[in-house]
Amino acid sequence: MRLRKVKNAKEKLLSFSGLVIFNPEDYQGKWNDKFQNNNPIYLEIGMGKGKFILENALNNPNINYIGCELSESILLKAARQIAEFNLNNLLLLNINANQLFNIFSHGEIDKIFLNFSDPWPKARHEKRRLTANSFLKIYQEILSDCGEIELKTDNRNLFEFSVMKFNEYHFKFKDLNLNLHEQFNPEVITTEYEERFKNLGNIIYYIKVEK
Amino acid sequence: MRLRKVKNAKEKLLSFSGLVIFNPEDYQGKWNDKFQNNNPIYLEIGMGKGKFILENALNNPNINYIGCELSESILLKAARQIAEFNLNNLLLLNINANQLFNIFSHGEIDKIFLNFSDPWPKARHEKRRLTANSFLKIYQEILSDCGEIELKTDNRNLFEFSVMKFNEYHFKFKDLNLNLHEQFNPEVITTEYEERFKNLGNIIYYIKVEK
Repeated sequence: MRLRKVKNAKEKLLSFSGLVIFNPEDYQGKWNDKFQNNNPIYLEIGMGKGKFILENALNNPNINYIGCELSESILLKAARQIAEFNLNNLLLLNINANQLFNIFSHGEIDKIFLNFSDPWPKARHEKRRLTANSFLKIYQEILSDCGEIELKTDNRNLFEFSVMKFNEYHFKFKDLNLNLHEQFNPEVITTEYEERFKNLGNIIYYIKVEK
Repeated sequence: MRLRKVKNAKEKLLSFSGLVIFNPEDYQGKWNDKFQNNNPIYLEIGMGKGKFILENALNNPNINYIGCELSESILLKAARQIAEFNLNNLLLLNINANQLFNIFSHGEIDKIFLNFSDPWPKARHEKRRLTANSFLKIYQEILSDCGEIELKTDNRNLFEFSVMKFNEYHFKFKDLNLNLHEQFNPEVITTEYEERFKNLGNIIYYIKVEK
């Protein structure tokens, strides 16, 4: 979601220090201690303004959620809204996905959500796609046995690329839908992007894979 | 392609005995002898009226083609047209796909084409789809090392099912296109179905996998 850069976003984020974790490396292997329970941990990489992860956290109090967002301005906007709910099962990180290796231990994450990630359409930017080789290696490392990845996008090329990569990395396909919103399903929690693209009549592609 | 049943189609087929093989089990493990060369053998299962396999055979004289079609009436129509070309790299079989086990030896086939197969949409008919478990086991048996399957369809549910099955049976994905005709490609040889569906604006899905 495009958003004007907020002045001093980094400083402003500091006021959300209970919700936003600024030293995530310190919790590597200890995230369940941080949440003070043994519930599964679900991660959204590129959470944007946070509609998807907030609704999930509200609906599933027995699951811990961690949302990652690289843009400080966007994360600030998410944090302002999420802070009002005072949830104890949702934390936010201002990180790049390539840092995940140092933030989570082997098998610490039970599910990863990749929602409407940047498609990086140019071939020379392939490595930046969140389903490129280096990222899939990270996911294999931090996901638990039978841990899952759910990916949604309206970008056909990113989806084709991701399906090929999941197959190459021996993920098991659990679900595949090449037109997610053909039938209305009230149980599907949507992202901001998704609502917009759905209303534009774009096809939304979906896949769920297991480690 | 719907076609009215031809009276005495079976008898009429007999006049194409050089082109249509009526005792295919006798050639199991000996198809290259039959073609009198060591060229690769490509198989189309459900060839319909044969436009696709005929154009392929004409374009690629160094590849042997075998077309299978269950309907005698449709095969007769194909045979009448194909016979005029007097090709020595194309043979036709009037068989059901579940007979392939007895017709080809281990690794005898280099590529299988599944073009616009019957989608069998009802769950209770899943076993009849040409990418159901029993068929994939046959394909694994008769395909050579690195042998390929290319599948095209305009049926989304059949395509989703097939992609899941190819992954489950550990086929390697080589190519995936979720809108094959978005860009015009003169090199793509189309089937009769494909031309019709393309002109109707239907999305054509495509996947190529390797054993």
